[in-house]
Amino acid sequence: MAKDFVVGIDIGGQSSKLGVVDARGLVLAQSVIKANPSTDANVIIRELAQAVTGLVADAGKQGEIRGIGVGAPNGNYYTGSIAFAPNLPWAAHGSVDFARILSDECGGIPVALTNDANAAAVGEMTYGVAKGMKDFIMITLGTGVGSGIVINGQVVYGSDGFAGELGHTCAVRHNGRLCGCGKYGCLEAYCSAVGVARTARDWLDMNPDEPSVLREVPAITSKDVYQAAKEGDALALRVFDYTGRILGEKLADFVEFSAPEAIVLFGGLARAREFLYEPTLKAMNENVLPLWRGKVKLLFSQLKESDAAILGASALAWEL
Amino acid sequence: MAKDFVVGIDIGGQSSKLGVVDARGLVLAQSVIKANPSTDANVIIRELAQAVTGLVADAGKQGEIRGIGVGAPNGNYYTGSIAFAPNLPWAAHGSVDFARILSDECGGIPVALTNDANAAAVGEMTYGVAKGMKDFIMITLGTGVGSGIVINGQVVYGSDGFAGELGHTCAVRHNGRLCGCGKYGCLEAYCSAVGVARTARDWLDMNPDEPSVLREVPAITSKDVYQAAKEGDALALRVFDYTGRILGEKLADFVEFSAPEAIVLFGGLARAREFLYEPTLKAMNENVLPLWRGKVKLLFSQLKESDAAILGASALAWEL
Repeated sequence: MAKDFVVGIDIGGQSSKLGVVDARGLVLAQSVIKANPSTDANVIIRELAQAVTGLVADAGKQGEIRGIGVGAPNGNYYTGSIAFAPNLPWAAHGSVDFARILSDECGGIPVALTNDANAAAVGEMTYGVAKGMKDFIMITLGTGVGSGIVINGQVVYGSDGFAGELGHTCAVRHNGRLCGCGKYGCLEAYCSAVGVARTARDWLDMNPDEPSVLREVPAITSKDVYQAAKEGDALALRVFDYTGRILGEKLADFVEFSAPEAIVLFGGLARAREFLYEPTLKAMNENVLPLWRGKVKLLFSQLKESDAAILGASALAWEL
Repeated sequence: MAKDFVVGIDIGGQSSKLGVVDARGLVLAQSVIKANPSTDANVIIRELAQAVTGLVADAGKQGEIRGIGVGAPNGNYYTGSIAFAPNLPWAAHGSVDFARILSDECGGIPVALTNDANAAAVGEMTYGVAKGMKDFIMITLGTGVGSGIVINGQVVYGSDGFAGELGHTCAVRHNGRLCGCGKYGCLEAYCSAVGVARTARDWLDMNPDEPSVLREVPAITSKDVYQAAKEGDALALRVFDYTGRILGEKLADFVEFSAPEAIVLFGGLARAREFLYEPTLKAMNENVLPLWRGKVKLLFSQLKESDAAILGASALAWEL
């Protein structure tokens, strides 16, 4: 029987999404499984395999699956393992031989694994605004800041499979904020959803006399800051200006590295496009060499976040 | 007749070097031509073509040249042109269709062009300390700071042929030094030969009471600072510590981008290995994510600078 379909899986800390996808990127069937709190990787992977088998049956495509592509935090393309992923209790404290076990549990269907940001980049290249581009950088602005780098039409995995940790390049060298990774001044500490909320809280403290609707909010999130900015709140608007400027300054460094055709922003925080676009583009252009000024596109993903992750992961499976 | 030989040309501001090279990287014949002050690109390229023809005749390899590889400032691999190269009077104010003209002048032998740092990276990968590596970054520490990035065994040229301008990533964000490119705080403004001399001069001014042998030197160069450091001069030693720290901090960013197996330092300033190695490695390791700490090698090129440039350029020609 021809194997004309693939499965894409996006593994997250809160839930995992999976879909059966055809060669044109149509999602024939999809489902979501809530995160299981078990710390036993075998339990988790068996549950996932059962979900895959069920979904393939629902789609009527038994025996027609060419491969399974998976995007997961800290997923390593070369080794097929997930190691020290803080948000996955079953993979937080060691290395899990994920791809091999899942393949075994799914009757030998081959499995390709990469991290979630790389999977999103593949999705964007295959089905999104980066379609047809050979050189672009995907920056995922979510709880953290991730990245997927495409050079010459291929995702950059580096010597060890872990390339593309642009969220942990240094944005603020001295007196930089402590990042979750233990370093100071990482881009992620400023330009993630968590970073935006932190900037807002810091600035409310530092400017006690400035009125802001955010003063009434008990535990400020980036969504609150976005909502406040939409209402014209001056402090919230400044928070996005600042966030965009820090992001744009670092994007300039990335342009000087790989001279991409475009930078694509993706993820929850990228929904604040109306407030982020201008300061980010301006700072990027001010900080690149003249030869790139005004030439590198700053794009925002148009794909639905859940689709992009499933599609991106599934696209990996066509190469199996 | 079998075409088993290539020509490598390294074009510089002061002089150009060329060599006839065999498949094992043996330079059979080489020569140097001093920079001609003409601003007419046709004059320059015709002179170069005559030198090539003469050298090939000297080596007795007429009709056996497969191609000519050229490394030049601002050389573009995709277009074969050299544009706005400040140190080349004949290519400083516009774009020169270099590869095509040189090929015509050399009776149709194909010509491949790239920038000097990329050529050096190819030389290092083919004949030097990066032999066999698929992922490494070459940083050239000369008058300026250049770079050649190799990912998955291939030089990164980017969407436009100009990728790898790591000397112009931002090392010092606020109150950064003005760089020759017009931006502030570029790595090149600190970690080039010019940058080292500038640091020394600044610090002599800022610390008027500190004794230093450099106070006797009329127009301090990086070589003077190196000599002073060898004599144990405390200020000169601190200059190298500082230079290494700034370099290492930025290398960490580059590691997070492409996860290379090694960073290779090359060029005049890299001869100060004894003073640069430790502070650079320490700062790199302090600023990378834990997963890379202590794992990425910091290597110094062992190739003679002139050989590396000719060999690197010549290696390009094998792909023609």
